[in-house]
Amino acid sequence: MDERIEKQLAFALEIDKVKNVFRQTHLSENGRNENDAEHSWHMAVMAYLLKEYANEKIDIGKVMLMCLIHDIVEIDAGDTYAYDTAGLQTQKAREDAAKERIFSILPEDQREELIALFDEFEDYETAESRFAHAMDNIQPLLLNNSNNGGDWREHHVTAEQVYKRQSKTKLGSRKLFEITDHIIQENIKKGNLEKKQL
Amino acid sequence: MDERIEKQLAFALEIDKVKNVFRQTHLSENGRNENDAEHSWHMAVMAYLLKEYANEKIDIGKVMLMCLIHDIVEIDAGDTYAYDTAGLQTQKAREDAAKERIFSILPEDQREELIALFDEFEDYETAESRFAHAMDNIQPLLLNNSNNGGDWREHHVTAEQVYKRQSKTKLGSRKLFEITDHIIQENIKKGNLEKKQL
Repeated sequence: MDERIEKQLAFALEIDKVKNVFRQTHLSENGRNENDAEHSWHMAVMAYLLKEYANEKIDIGKVMLMCLIHDIVEIDAGDTYAYDTAGLQTQKAREDAAKERIFSILPEDQREELIALFDEFEDYETAESRFAHAMDNIQPLLLNNSNNGGDWREHHVTAEQVYKRQSKTKLGSRKLFEITDHIIQENIKKGNLEKKQL
Repeated sequence: MDERIEKQLAFALEIDKVKNVFRQTHLSENGRNENDAEHSWHMAVMAYLLKEYANEKIDIGKVMLMCLIHDIVEIDAGDTYAYDTAGLQTQKAREDAAKERIFSILPEDQREELIALFDEFEDYETAESRFAHAMDNIQPLLLNNSNNGGDWREHHVTAEQVYKRQSKTKLGSRKLFEITDHIIQENIKKGNLEKKQL
């Protein structure tokens, strides 16, 4: 086996571990916690199906790949819940170290390519990145809404916190933010979101 | 919410169920059984990383999407193990019924598009389909090899059965079949594959 393909297959095996990184979100029908591989798969399929709602012209293949790889760093860095204030402060340093270790398993050209794609996602500056983030927001919203807001209730999340995160969806898709807003309002009415931080 | 986006989001929620369809393959490090969403995610990432080994020119975005959606029918039809002779006989009828029900949740144009893509995958006749099938073969092989052939040992699979399935990898990638052949031979030497059917 030549060195290039050996590195590629070693990386393919390494990323299997992302299937063991569990998130706070629960599967529909009040299922178990979701893991990063499942979340990434779901985001990529949704990106394709909802691509007509992107604010700007997007390269959908690039968006899908961004969705698929954006959580690989969590193999080392762990999942940081969107409303975990302390965790969010150290998230970038943890993910940067993870990015270096994990993507360096690949041949140099692919290491550079995937790090650039991961950084592009994080930087929120391109049309593809903004639409991929819209998926990262709406996918768990959809599951949580189907479970009557169970994840929010468990963590005493406020409407203000949800709007702070979810309002960025409008950078990627105004249409999907309309849907998001509608869902949040319904959950406020049902009492699934708290009005003020406890 | 207009009818089109309502259908799209209903489909997005429906396919969440594929995360509960478990396969015979086990995760690396002798982990639990893998589910279809994880398998599809892994195939799509591997397709992107290994695209240079496709025999023919491929549209990689199309291959990735094919990988991502190819097992959605198993929400109704269940997973059919590659070496389950009885199950394989009824697989097509079960999957055809599932395909109609599940993809019909989408708006008509997307229903047609995804059914066509699923059929293209099944028909094994395009470069994209052949390369996606190579991923469908090599992804579990990689995991199973990392677990010292545990899935084969559990099901008393023979070398002949594995070659029958895995030899089709060469239709998508001669290079990846070389790797496959090397892995199978090593597992025969280790006694992880039986020589004859019991």
